[in-house]
Amino acid sequence: MKNTQTPSAMPIHKYRPYRDTLGIDLPDRSWPSKTTTVAPRWCAVDLRDGNQALIDPMSPERKRIMFDLLVRMGYKDIEVGFPSASQTDFDFVRTLIDENLIPDDVRIQVLTQARGELINRTYESLIGAKQAIVHLYNSTSVLQRDVVFRTDKQGIIDLALNGARLCRAAESIADGTEIFYEYSPESFTGTELDFALEVCNEVLEVLEPTPDRKVIINLPATVEMASPNVYADSIEWMSRHLNHRANVIISLHPHNDRGTAVAAAELGYLAGADRIEGCLFGNGERTGNVDLVALGINLFTQGIDPQIDFSDLDEVKRTAEYCNQLPVHERSPWAGDLVYTAFSGSHQDAIKKGFEAMQADAAAQGVSVDELLWAVPYLPIDPKDLGRGYEAVVRVNSQSGKGGVAYLLKADHALDLPRKLQIEFSGVVQAKTDAEGGEVTSDQIWEIFHDEYLPAHHADNKWGRFELHSTATASDLAGSTRLDVTLRVGDTSAPAAGTGNGPIAAFLGIMAEHGVDVKLYDYVEHALSAGGDALAAAYVELNVNGKRLWGVGIDADISTASLKAVVSAVNRAVRMDAGDRDLVSA
Amino acid sequence: MKNTQTPSAMPIHKYRPYRDTLGIDLPDRSWPSKTTTVAPRWCAVDLRDGNQALIDPMSPERKRIMFDLLVRMGYKDIEVGFPSASQTDFDFVRTLIDENLIPDDVRIQVLTQARGELINRTYESLIGAKQAIVHLYNSTSVLQRDVVFRTDKQGIIDLALNGARLCRAAESIADGTEIFYEYSPESFTGTELDFALEVCNEVLEVLEPTPDRKVIINLPATVEMASPNVYADSIEWMSRHLNHRANVIISLHPHNDRGTAVAAAELGYLAGADRIEGCLFGNGERTGNVDLVALGINLFTQGIDPQIDFSDLDEVKRTAEYCNQLPVHERSPWAGDLVYTAFSGSHQDAIKKGFEAMQADAAAQGVSVDELLWAVPYLPIDPKDLGRGYEAVVRVNSQSGKGGVAYLLKADHALDLPRKLQIEFSGVVQAKTDAEGGEVTSDQIWEIFHDEYLPAHHADNKWGRFELHSTATASDLAGSTRLDVTLRVGDTSAPAAGTGNGPIAAFLGIMAEHGVDVKLYDYVEHALSAGGDALAAAYVELNVNGKRLWGVGIDADISTASLKAVVSAVNRAVRMDAGDRDLVSA
Repeated sequence: MKNTQTPSAMPIHKYRPYRDTLGIDLPDRSWPSKTTTVAPRWCAVDLRDGNQALIDPMSPERKRIMFDLLVRMGYKDIEVGFPSASQTDFDFVRTLIDENLIPDDVRIQVLTQARGELINRTYESLIGAKQAIVHLYNSTSVLQRDVVFRTDKQGIIDLALNGARLCRAAESIADGTEIFYEYSPESFTGTELDFALEVCNEVLEVLEPTPDRKVIINLPATVEMASPNVYADSIEWMSRHLNHRANVIISLHPHNDRGTAVAAAELGYLAGADRIEGCLFGNGERTGNVDLVALGINLFTQGIDPQIDFSDLDEVKRTAEYCNQLPVHERSPWAGDLVYTAFSGSHQDAIKKGFEAMQADAAAQGVSVDELLWAVPYLPIDPKDLGRGYEAVVRVNSQSGKGGVAYLLKADHALDLPRKLQIEFSGVVQAKTDAEGGEVTSDQIWEIFHDEYLPAHHADNKWGRFELHSTATASDLAGSTRLDVTLRVGDTSAPAAGTGNGPIAAFLGIMAEHGVDVKLYDYVEHALSAGGDALAAAYVELNVNGKRLWGVGIDADISTASLKAVVSAVNRAVRMDAGDRDLVSA
Repeated sequence: MKNTQTPSAMPIHKYRPYRDTLGIDLPDRSWPSKTTTVAPRWCAVDLRDGNQALIDPMSPERKRIMFDLLVRMGYKDIEVGFPSASQTDFDFVRTLIDENLIPDDVRIQVLTQARGELINRTYESLIGAKQAIVHLYNSTSVLQRDVVFRTDKQGIIDLALNGARLCRAAESIADGTEIFYEYSPESFTGTELDFALEVCNEVLEVLEPTPDRKVIINLPATVEMASPNVYADSIEWMSRHLNHRANVIISLHPHNDRGTAVAAAELGYLAGADRIEGCLFGNGERTGNVDLVALGINLFTQGIDPQIDFSDLDEVKRTAEYCNQLPVHERSPWAGDLVYTAFSGSHQDAIKKGFEAMQADAAAQGVSVDELLWAVPYLPIDPKDLGRGYEAVVRVNSQSGKGGVAYLLKADHALDLPRKLQIEFSGVVQAKTDAEGGEVTSDQIWEIFHDEYLPAHHADNKWGRFELHSTATASDLAGSTRLDVTLRVGDTSAPAAGTGNGPIAAFLGIMAEHGVDVKLYDYVEHALSAGGDALAAAYVELNVNGKRLWGVGIDADISTASLKAVVSAVNRAVRMDAGDRDLVSA
């Protein structure tokens, strides 16, 4: 069974193995035999490293929402900004302090470069805070020394020491604030280990760690450049060689360039680190900072208290998505929309049996299911523990191999249904599928869609109670539109007219005159193809006499399409009412 | 510096450490000292494990596109389906074989459970193929034995052996096809190691591996249950103890429940595995299969040929997004939209200096930049090597702290600009920002937007060449709409009329009569708030006399909003033409 893979034409000559370059060698490493038994100290950097990597950086209001979320979840070290580099960050730190928003057991952390004017400004931002961590950094890597700073090792050490001394001197500015220190040899993963050690040990002499005032040495994978075992080796090596080790808190700050940041944090923690910096859902520069949600819940699944509250993860997700204006992916660990969903029949069967077995065990033992060890195949965690329900656990993609409902309507009929309408319609299809069994073809889906939302194909086959026969609008562009329609109601067609600030508003008035109380929640329209002569589809979400439901209209005239969509929803509501009555009378 | 973290109320009693349960102990492990020097054998399972986890499973057309992509990239082992479980999968395998779509050096792989009727059907699907891998599996974990199969260890071994024997007996069905075997103890990560070994060794006796016909033993992290070093330990242990080791190909199949699948694959490969199964961009059940793109490009960055062509990664991404109908996240390793973008000033400065230094080095050495080792801070890879440009490398979020342009328009004015219009408008803002410097407030952004796309605030301040004064439409719902407008052209207002299948079409006709040639590419509309009396925004992308650009209209009448949007784009085009003339005459 020959390996038939062939060389690619990729320019591999431009790259070389990172491990060879830096020459880490630690044959007697101890971390692979260790296990984690307690949560690390966490530091959330969403408001600094996360925020600086956003297309739309957080407004003060969004920053405040993020800060409150992090506090609520239980984070105690929260990096809140780079106040000397940004007035907005400065103002935000002042707001937190001046408005007394920082709980007593929470330490805010502020970043600063090792430059005098920046350092003084940093301490000014902290005046009046009970306590704070000043996070001093300078870049130490071979590449940055050569290319950015154009200085030798001693130049970098001098820069760091000068910064540390300026910090000590500036402490008096924030008199009364208990100041702690964090020092980062930035681009640590591109720095020779012995040089990183030298810089950190020199800085420690200036910062004078004590048991009561430990100093954080943060070793960032500013860029993730090697597999996580190499990072762990470098952490164990540093942990062995740092001076004042008992009074030093080793902190990790992994980025995710290679997709292994979670592993780097976990193995680095085994290797002797005490603390981990990261962001919710792995936001941050480029591929992101390490994902604090994955790390915390990974501990939880091993029976270790993360000391962070993930019990309403959907709310955490919604808030982070709002603050970051970036989505959490469908497959993001523990949080994505699809991570508790089984489509495969054998998985679904096993999950069902797992639930049944737990219920039987609980009954036999006379305890609640929640007192048992969790044991359901393909579900490494009880979704309920994160505030998720079981609805999504088993989901049918009944169109398997044919493409799904929403996809087929888009591919074959150019209809791009809003997500909420997709859900509504999939229920309609599901009901048909369950009733009739087997796979449903694209033609059948279109038939079901047409039956449910669009007027009957044949003129003599009256689809619903209402039908539009003609429309005419007139606008003076001063905010008022007059709508004239010919409307069939039951068997009678008659003209009707209404006025509103648009045709829909005018039409809702006409419907009200016919005893139908309609409220508009949402509408979406799109062309079915390019070109001025294209058909348009309109989707409206209405409340019709207390029922919330969707209607669909298709017409070359976008305005008419909207009116047809209203008629569609109203006719569906009327039909459902009739169905309800049937049920009651049955 | 006290750790002030407090216990959460999470129900940790429901979980226990995985490693304790399974009791893996390998103090003399060798993998942490090893380094990777050559690519593993890859197996792409997008068409099976990936496809079965999709909301919209691939249609035959999408399957074919995915298969062709995988072949083009250089994958030689491609799992194409579960033909005995799905008629669609069966038909797809037949199409591949019957239409001669499988290159000679590519092996298709088909999955089957260890049941007689399924096995025969599996071989029927393969008739006529040059070669194929039959992938036999059964679940072996403690949990599945207890809950799903309700059998003991011997029962599971019998199931596996029976399946293997049925396979051997069925080979004659696909006479002429060279059959290779893969066996998976499914849910391996939930199985006692010694039992997994026992099952595999027994199955190997039936499958009779030889140097020419090696057997693949696939050890899936069906559910990822522990940190990746534990998985690596289990792989090294299996590698040491499997019989016929020289004729066995150990394959990894990590899932990403804990977010460490890439690390698990990398460490498992160090631990002695030969082959890795995964999906492009980490598609697959729940959190996905391991990401083949991350794994391959991770090798590339170490100067190791992945033997896969990633040189047009955007095309790979587009194709996978089309086939899977799932997006690749903005921060997905090597492929996300944001992974080469630096927003921070210090990062941008370092990147700039890195590029300059490389150019200077190349000039000094008299070689092209592409012959040098890549060395740019914060860019672990040259985006060009993956077919990406440098445009996105440096990107300004000039509204830093205030929220970005698109966000502000949405938050403060309820305008939800289409992505392409966001890009167009950000260029407009950028030009103003560069000219005037400093941050731009939300009010200023609105002013810029209004100046660019909307009519002037004051009636006496004529914004453009064309202006609508009144509109009236009439439709017979038979496909024809008549539009009557009062249109100002320059200083003269006059009535005009047109007919089309909708008001936009009718209006484009009117514009044509005024010598403006307009083609519609796209239009999008939305309400600015809920309720029938809401304003609507319309966005149209037009080609106006050869210029491609956007227009925006806002009106209570959605139809009028569209016409205003057309006017907006036409006026902008006229103004640009004037600007062009100014430039020419200057």
